[in-house]
Amino acid sequence: MEGQKNLSSPAFKEPVHVGRPNLPDRKVFDRYIQSIFDSRWLTNNGPLLRQFKEKLQDYLEVKNVIPVCNGTIALELAERALGFQREVVMPSYTFIATAHSLRWQQITPVFADIQHKATTLAPKSARNAITEATSGIIGVHVYGHPCDHSALKAIAMERSIPLLYDAAHSFGCEVDGIPAAKLGDASVFSFHATKFFNTFEGGAITTDDDDLAEKVRLMNNFGFAGREKDKVDYLGINGKMSEISAAMGLAMLDSVESIRNRNRENYSAYADSFSSVPGLELIEPPASLTRNNWQYVIFRVNKAGITRDNLAQALERENILVRKYFHPGCHRLVPYCSEPSSLRVSLAETEALSDAVLSFPTGQAVNPDMIEKIANVTAEIIERNCG
Amino acid sequence: MEGQKNLSSPAFKEPVHVGRPNLPDRKVFDRYIQSIFDSRWLTNNGPLLRQFKEKLQDYLEVKNVIPVCNGTIALELAERALGFQREVVMPSYTFIATAHSLRWQQITPVFADIQHKATTLAPKSARNAITEATSGIIGVHVYGHPCDHSALKAIAMERSIPLLYDAAHSFGCEVDGIPAAKLGDASVFSFHATKFFNTFEGGAITTDDDDLAEKVRLMNNFGFAGREKDKVDYLGINGKMSEISAAMGLAMLDSVESIRNRNRENYSAYADSFSSVPGLELIEPPASLTRNNWQYVIFRVNKAGITRDNLAQALERENILVRKYFHPGCHRLVPYCSEPSSLRVSLAETEALSDAVLSFPTGQAVNPDMIEKIANVTAEIIERNCG
Repeated sequence: MEGQKNLSSPAFKEPVHVGRPNLPDRKVFDRYIQSIFDSRWLTNNGPLLRQFKEKLQDYLEVKNVIPVCNGTIALELAERALGFQREVVMPSYTFIATAHSLRWQQITPVFADIQHKATTLAPKSARNAITEATSGIIGVHVYGHPCDHSALKAIAMERSIPLLYDAAHSFGCEVDGIPAAKLGDASVFSFHATKFFNTFEGGAITTDDDDLAEKVRLMNNFGFAGREKDKVDYLGINGKMSEISAAMGLAMLDSVESIRNRNRENYSAYADSFSSVPGLELIEPPASLTRNNWQYVIFRVNKAGITRDNLAQALERENILVRKYFHPGCHRLVPYCSEPSSLRVSLAETEALSDAVLSFPTGQAVNPDMIEKIANVTAEIIERNCG
Repeated sequence: MEGQKNLSSPAFKEPVHVGRPNLPDRKVFDRYIQSIFDSRWLTNNGPLLRQFKEKLQDYLEVKNVIPVCNGTIALELAERALGFQREVVMPSYTFIATAHSLRWQQITPVFADIQHKATTLAPKSARNAITEATSGIIGVHVYGHPCDHSALKAIAMERSIPLLYDAAHSFGCEVDGIPAAKLGDASVFSFHATKFFNTFEGGAITTDDDDLAEKVRLMNNFGFAGREKDKVDYLGINGKMSEISAAMGLAMLDSVESIRNRNRENYSAYADSFSSVPGLELIEPPASLTRNNWQYVIFRVNKAGITRDNLAQALERENILVRKYFHPGCHRLVPYCSEPSSLRVSLAETEALSDAVLSFPTGQAVNPDMIEKIANVTAEIIERNCG
């Protein structure tokens, strides 16, 4: 009976997604498009790209921003510019792109664990994963929750290796009062459609180091040193962000605080509505996150009387498309799961969290009323399974 | 007096560029943008991307088209999917991206020469550059002028190595009656802003091999095998084309034949107007190019009484921004110029052509009247220098 009911009428008529894209004001976006048609300048460091870069430098409070076609290519460029090679230590608990960006360049990612009761790289585990072959560390601010940046900086300095942050989730975040974009030797942001702030596809490298920034800029355009394409200073690729993505970014900047507010409201609604749902524990941001964009709502499913996977499936039948971010951890995925060189330390905390985690829908397309309904549906599913 | 005149009033008030972008009908483009705002689907194999892919498969007459964020990333993906490693033989006479896409993945490009009186890879030279370490061949249809595909295919089969074509210039071209997209094991197109057909930034991999296409598709989205991101089949990156670039591509497809016609008119105007200009020889497409997009106008500067570089500078002062495509050849650029492993055979023809070549403005933004003026200005410069 239950099954039949669900098949015929899910709780939501339309799917409710995690990461349904946020959109800017259409009229603002159209004005930028008109300027592209007027100038016939479609890419290659055009006027909108330069304007976007300047505005991002202000907004992210960092000396250099290099906008790039997507976050993965941004990682590749930052890694190459920082001289990464042979081995790099990084958390397994992250999106696979962090690992793939290294491996694509024939660098071996060596996975370290996350901290107990947190979502980010454990400095002690990172230290244990380092060998003579280690050329750098990547910290990932998972869900915008910041790494222990002081401890990681101390390790990087002690070993004289660069420290890169994957800040894909950290747009507009501050850590202990410091803008996220300023941490480490460089940071990489993602402006992918599903992110808090998007440029369709996109990303950026941020750094206060002018020399590093210049190196990334050249590498981002085939290493060309000038307009005439007969001088190359570095090996490089094409990572350029087009004018239309810059246009989207400029338009989105106008909406970013209203989206942040919506996310904060949604987060509070989840905290309220789910307080009485047994077995789901909301993962709260750490105190060090002094400014948050609230773009992720993450629960730990634990003693709910239903497995995380079964709960996810039951919610999906109700058109609530929760996601297992980040299951199962990079170290349990191809090709790393069969590569001993990537596996050196215990990843027990990573496995425990990735087997319990569930990400719920938020953003512009979600509101507190919907969240109350999501909580009720979740509670019903759990009750049904315990009963 | 001449110098003063030039400084105060160049022949053209506004710069006339090589590769000024072609644009689609704004209204057609706007309709696609509206559909993006309606669906809130901004990337990740969205409805426009799928429509664009289908239309490209028809237009390019090939079984599989995988649209990608740019041509360089498309090259990287094709090379990786074809199993390229260690060494790959390719012409030095090409845009640096062909070489960089290999080297970024730690593969050594080994440069071969072009044919005498042609612009493309010399099969004999390619064969001489092959060793036991060679894992593949890349042919480049420079200016859309096709490689000797029968001879290259024979070499690839004899050595049992894959053959990839860099078809960045070949959109809508046919070679001996065969669509360019069908040649080799795979081909890579560029839809960069400056190309005949553009998607702001973009590119595509084409192949008639369904298994190879599926591999590329997975690699283009981090190797994910399904919607749930907990199964990875391959190492991959993010090469995805966004919905807005697909929208541009769809809109451009409506204009592509009118742009081809304009290019053909422009080419004829150059042939007529420059027939009486001494020292500039128009490089004509070979007979094997049975369908051309006419997107490049290339001259060989020879016995003009002025060096190629001085002629280029003089034209630039008149706001005619000619380009030295492709000077100086990959083998004379960083990092390859100092890497003996890349240099194995004579590149005399490459050096001769790259030291003489000059590319002139064409496309939507150029018309036959402007070309007549360009020819007159060029003739004047040459006369002045001989006088």
